[in-house]
Order: sequence, then C-alpha cells, then structure tokens
Amino acid sequence: MKINLPELDKKRVVVIGGGFAGIALVKKLAGKNYQVVLIDRNNYHQFQPLFYQVAMAGLEPSSIVFPLRKLFRKKENTFIRMTEVERIDPEKRQLHTTLGVVNYDYLVLATGAETNFFGNAQIADKAIPMKSVSEALYLRNHILADYEKSLSIEDYEERQSYLDIVVVGGGPTGVEVAGSLAEMKKYILPKDYPELNIEEVDIFLIQGNKDLLHGMSEKASEKALEFLTNLGVKILLEKRVTAYDGKRVTLNDGTTIPAKKVIWAAGITGKSPEGLSTECKGPGGRILVDRYSKVQGHDNIYAIGDIALMKEEAYPDGHPQLAQAAMQQGKNLAENFIRLDKGKALVPFTYRDLGSMATIGRNRAVVDLPNIKFQGTFAWFVWLFVHLFSLLGVKNKVFVFLNWLWGYSTYDQSLRLIIRPKLNKVDIPSEENAPVL
Amino acid sequence: MKINLPELDKKRVVVIGGGFAGIALVKKLAGKNYQVVLIDRNNYHQFQPLFYQVAMAGLEPSSIVFPLRKLFRKKENTFIRMTEVERIDPEKRQLHTTLGVVNYDYLVLATGAETNFFGNAQIADKAIPMKSVSEALYLRNHILADYEKSLSIEDYEERQSYLDIVVVGGGPTGVEVAGSLAEMKKYILPKDYPELNIEEVDIFLIQGNKDLLHGMSEKASEKALEFLTNLGVKILLEKRVTAYDGKRVTLNDGTTIPAKKVIWAAGITGKSPEGLSTECKGPGGRILVDRYSKVQGHDNIYAIGDIALMKEEAYPDGHPQLAQAAMQQGKNLAENFIRLDKGKALVPFTYRDLGSMATIGRNRAVVDLPNIKFQGTFAWFVWLFVHLFSLLGVKNKVFVFLNWLWGYSTYDQSLRLIIRPKLNKVDIPSEENAPVL
Repeated sequence: MKINLPELDKKRVVVIGGGFAGIALVKKLAGKNYQVVLIDRNNYHQFQPLFYQVAMAGLEPSSIVFPLRKLFRKKENTFIRMTEVERIDPEKRQLHTTLGVVNYDYLVLATGAETNFFGNAQIADKAIPMKSVSEALYLRNHILADYEKSLSIEDYEERQSYLDIVVVGGGPTGVEVAGSLAEMKKYILPKDYPELNIEEVDIFLIQGNKDLLHGMSEKASEKALEFLTNLGVKILLEKRVTAYDGKRVTLNDGTTIPAKKVIWAAGITGKSPEGLSTECKGPGGRILVDRYSKVQGHDNIYAIGDIALMKEEAYPDGHPQLAQAAMQQGKNLAENFIRLDKGKALVPFTYRDLGSMATIGRNRAVVDLPNIKFQGTFAWFVWLFVHLFSLLGVKNKVFVFLNWLWGYSTYDQSLRLIIRPKLNKVDIPSEENAPVL
Repeated sequence: MKINLPELDKKRVVVIGGGFAGIALVKKLAGKNYQVVLIDRNNYHQFQPLFYQVAMAGLEPSSIVFPLRKLFRKKENTFIRMTEVERIDPEKRQLHTTLGVVNYDYLVLATGAETNFFGNAQIADKAIPMKSVSEALYLRNHILADYEKSLSIEDYEERQSYLDIVVVGGGPTGVEVAGSLAEMKKYILPKDYPELNIEEVDIFLIQGNKDLLHGMSEKASEKALEFLTNLGVKILLEKRVTAYDGKRVTLNDGTTIPAKKVIWAAGITGKSPEGLSTECKGPGGRILVDRYSKVQGHDNIYAIGDIALMKEEAYPDGHPQLAQAAMQQGKNLAENFIRLDKGKALVPFTYRDLGSMATIGRNRAVVDLPNIKFQGTFAWFVWLFVHLFSLLGVKNKVFVFLNWLWGYSTYDQSLRLIIRPKLNKVDIPSEENAPVL
C-alpha cells in the first residue's frame, strides 16, 4: 500500500521528524520547487527544553508543543503524515511506514535522539526518562501520586522510598529538574501536605563527572553546584548508578538509596530507522554525514540534528546535540536544496556556537555566551527571555509567560493534577509499543 | 489496615466525592467543629459543564479542574485522601477503601452519576462517554487521530466512517458537542486538512425525544434546533440507537450510519458504593433521601447531588441532576451539621431553580431563567459569564477567558494535539480498571 499523496511534477523531499532540525528545514523549503512530505509519529512539534517544567506541574503540555498542521498551514506543496517509520529501502528510494510506502527523491533523517540507558535493561525498565511530553506528564502523575500514597505509609523506610527522588545526570536537564524539585519541596509540599514531614523528602542528583553542567564553563559548573546545594539538593559527584530495581538505587561505590522514582537524564543515543548501511553508523547511535549533511555511503539520504554526526575542524567529535545545531543544520540543508534546484554551488555547513544556559530554581541561572559568561538573577532573566522567544506560536508565548508570572508571584504551580489516561479502546499507538521513529 | 488519619476529639464526617455537591459541603464545613475527610479517586475537582470544550480542543483539562489540596489548603481539620471506595459497612460505621478502612460518625455520599448505556454492553464498549476529563481528552485524541487516518483511506465508504461523528443525546451536552463539532468542520478542517473534502464530513445528532433540550422551554428547544440546523448538523429526532459495533450505528427504524466515533450523552445513572440496603435504592441508580439528605433506612449516612433522589412537593420525581441542585444540597447539609453541633433545629432542603442554559456554536446560546427566557447572542454572553464565574480559582478564570478570547478572535482552537499517554509502568490506577467510586 502506498501513502496517499498527490504526484507532483517536482522532486519529493521526505523529512522524518518534526523536531528542531526538521521544522527548520521544512519551514525554509515549504513553497519552493519541491514537494515536501513531513513525517512524524506525533501531530505536533515538542519544545524539549521545557519538558522538565511540564513534569514539575509548572506548564501544560499544550503550552510547549505546537500542531504541525497549524505550523505549515498555508505552505504549498507541503504535506504532513502522522505515522511510524518502519524502514528505509535505499535501493528503491522508498520509505516504509505503518501507513504504507512513500517514494522519495531525497530523504532527510531528523529523527533526533532518545534516552540512553547504556544497555542496562533493568534501569531502562524502571527509571523514568524525559524525552517526550508524554513522559513528562507521566512523571508529573507519578510524583504526585507518590506523595498521596506516602500519607498512608507508616513504615519510615518504606515512606522514604515514596518521598525521595533520585535524578541521574548532571547536565542541563538533570540540574533543572533537581532545582525544580527542591523548589516544590520548599514551597508547595508544606502547603499541600501539612501532614508530611518535609524533612523526610530528599532530592538526590547523581553525576558521573566531577562537575555539574560538564561542557559549560568552570564558573557555570561551580555556580550550579552552589545554587543547588543552597536549595538543599544532595549532590553526589563522580558516582554512577549501577542498578535500580524500582525500589532502591545502587551506586558504583555500593551506596544504596531507597527511591521509587529515578529520573534518568544521563545521556542520549541517536535513533535511526532500519535499512541504512553499517558504514554510516557512528558512535552514540549517530549517523555520519559530510559537511552537506549527506549520509556517508548513501546517495540522496541526509541527516540533520541530534542524529547526525558531522565533523568540522573545530568539532572533531561532531557538534553538540543541541537545538541550535539542529536548527542551523536544517536551515543550511534547505538552502542547499534550493541552490541545487537553481543549479548553484552548495555551501558546506559551519556551526555557529550561540552559547548555552541552564536555570536553577526560581530565580537563578547560568549562561555561557561565546564572549561573556554570567550567573545569577540576570542570567535567569536572559534564560526566560531566550526560552520564551524560542517557543513556537504567539499564544504559547503569551500563555507560558502568564504561567511563569503567576507561578513566580504566587510561589505556586497550579497544575498538580493526576490526570490519568483513559485506556485506548482503539488503536491509537502508544508511546511504548510504537516502533522507533 | 486503617487509613492513616489523626484521631481528633471531634465527630468525623467522611465525604465521598469532590464534585459540586461534595465541594460545597466541605467548603462550608471546613474549620467547624468536625473532622472532615474528603475522599476522591482523583486529586482534583472537575468542572463538568466544560468537558465538551476539552474534547473539542478548545480548553486544556487543567483550566477546568482544580486540585483539591489547593482548594482546602488552609482549612483546619480537613483531610484529603485519594483512593477508591470499595464498600460501606453501615453496621460498624466503616468505609472500606483501597488505602484501608476509615471509621465515620457521619458518611456523605456525593458520588455523582456515570454514563448510562441502558444495559447495552456493546454500546458501552464501543461508544465514547464524556463524564470525566480523561474521557474528554480521549475523545479529543480520537477525533484528531481519525482525521489523520482518513487522509490515507481511498475507499469512500471506509473514509466516511472515519470522518462522520454521531452524537447521541439531545440534552445540553449533546447539543453543545454537536455545535462545536460543526464549528470545527467549518473553520478548522479546511485550514488544517486542505486535502480533505469537508463535504464528506457529517455530524449527526440523535435524540430520543421529539425535541432537543427536553426539559427546557419550548422556545429554547426550537432555537437550539434552528441554530444547529444552520450549522449543518443533521438532527434525527425521535430516534434511538439500538446497536453499535464500532463501525456502524443502527437506529430503531433500521437506518444505519457508518461512524467510528459515537459520542454517548444519552443519559446518566447514579453510582453508589456497595453495602447500602436495598430499600434506599431508587430509580435511575439514585439513592432515596429525606428532606435532610439522610439516606432512607440508614442512620448517619447522607447523600447529596446527582446520586440523591429527594422528593419535594414541586419535584415529585426528585430534583434535576444539575450542578445547582448539587451545590445547594451540599450547602444545606453542611449547615445542618453545624446546627446539629450547636443543638439547633435542622432545616429541610428546598430547591431554588436558578434556570438552565446551553450554548450552540461560537455565539449562540439558549437561556431559561425562572422569569425570562431568551436565545441568541446576548444569551451566549450570559452563558460565558455564568460559566466563567462558576469555575474554581482565579487562574482558571483568567486562562479560560483568554482561551475563549483567543479562540473567538482567531476562529481557531490551538489545542489540536494528540498527546498519547505513556503507559503506566506503576500502579497508578487507570479510569477503566478502577472500581466504582
């Protein structure tokens, strides 16, 4: 069965994945002399940098995701299909999906990355990742449900496991989650659960490296450590999680921590569809591409964003897996498609580092810009501004801003709702039984 | 096992259900000379009159629900437990729940009503009810997923079943849902799905009675019919659904309609826990109570809201199952508990009819007040104002208002997101496998 698409007298570019890279590409290519087909398992674009705020009951999912159809509503020759990719057939230039087969002239992989459990099946089964809004919502429900349950547990040790939360990974996500949890403990729990002894609630942050925010400046790492310590987060550096059975975390030094919730933000790995040659597979599950984003050993297949591993002089191990790099690659590839169509020479990609940042708690952040690095309250304003500005859609910007204003002035997030899914009676594929996109 | 609760030197009132009736009672009784324990399967209060807007992607669930803990945050002697009720033991004055047993001095049933499928198991299995935000979200996902799927279905007849939607029940919910669906067809579908032929999309409304909004004034019924007809809704009066296999609806006159979505708003039935005597069971699954809300044949057990059937001179068949009646009963019962404590005489309940209303599409409504009835745009403003005013919480009011303003001025709801649940790895009970509250 073929996917039902009009056959236009134009080359067809099929893009898999509506993340930062895919969106940047399709935005620029829409309306040009190509037929663009965007495929995603969801009907929306997700703003990953704010997943943690959904998990912490600060924002609704709808504020940080944006419907793809709305985004490309008036774009001619652009078609959106919500489906799961099964495999690529590079010989026939065909992509197999659950909706059927689609032919391509050019295929662009913008499939991103997924949580890396480093092959530990037990941890993969029990720990909670945070790479989709569905997972963020799941975490929100789980945290709140455990506070509720803890009220009826009289055994101290058992109650501990419901109250304590372990965050694994000291990168931006781990730091931001740990900071928010500490705020929740400080401002929300005493009001919502006066029966709880909040001294019993511990937030642990486990980091494998010797500093937090490894990869950012030394000053940023130091300040992040200081801010989190002041918030009461128990930070364990140079420690790794070796086992987790759903009740108790074991570290490499033999320490164990009772915790029914382990938030896993310790690493990512690329997720590419079946059917590619082995020669293009790079480290970290990434796909090797040249400076034009073309996949090594494949004609007419490209890769951009987190999944792509492109070596530049300044980045011999590839670019950082950040939204910025993804967007820049998407834009460059779109421009090259346009140049190709006009018979112009292609321009190789060059990464422009715009800096990185992370927020810690209600009014602290660390910001590394190429020429200046700063931390504290002003950094937090910069963080707010940049994230607000980067959200898709005016309404999302307005609603997120109002939510932040509200939360900040009332010391309260008001989304502490355990909205449990009604189980599907029909075959809307779930996150879990879905094949890799 | 007992539910972990402090033993106070006060009479304990256990309230089951945080709907309109339960909330009204607890609000008034909190801080008084009783220990109040509110039990609900959810940690939030739901504003049922706006479920249909969640289903139609107009509002987020969080805008129309409110965390119970936040609501009763500063109320002394008030305790909230999120659990499922298993049964009542009236002899021992105990309530059995999944968290354990709780003793009561007074028990108040405010368990509300659930969807009535009139004993048809096939319909109950396949049709979509709308009595919780979870169900409303499920419907939203389902509608959008079917539009996506319809794009790849070439067979006309099969495609019809994905596009057509049948609404069963011509009461306020059915009328409001049908009106919103018609608006969605008119304003959203052509923009989001230019590939769809919207002529193929039909909205059916099936009503058993000879008029819509049966129970409201004749004028309201006529106008509702007129407004919906103008919006293109196909209304079938004096028809009943006799079968539905998930693909095809069969009516009592033999007509069949292909539709993979049947929204069931055709009736409700009370849901009471196990353990009550048979003598108190009234028609419609309701529980017979006297004018003081005391359950017939039981001491110390009361029932208020949709579950209660109280006969007044003016209401020989009981009060209408509306939020107004529930709130008034909750308030009256709380006041009587306070009177009881002070040794004062109790006051029997008298229902004060404040009127009823329904909205149809983007700027039409019908309103029946006790002394005046009107329909059209002004009625719609009244509807907006009353609903906005009735929502719990300032933030909810503000956010719903902004959402309405946005939706109204852009002809667009922007929540068309198919956010699929991540399946629970842990035992957060789902809506479906949960016992009756």
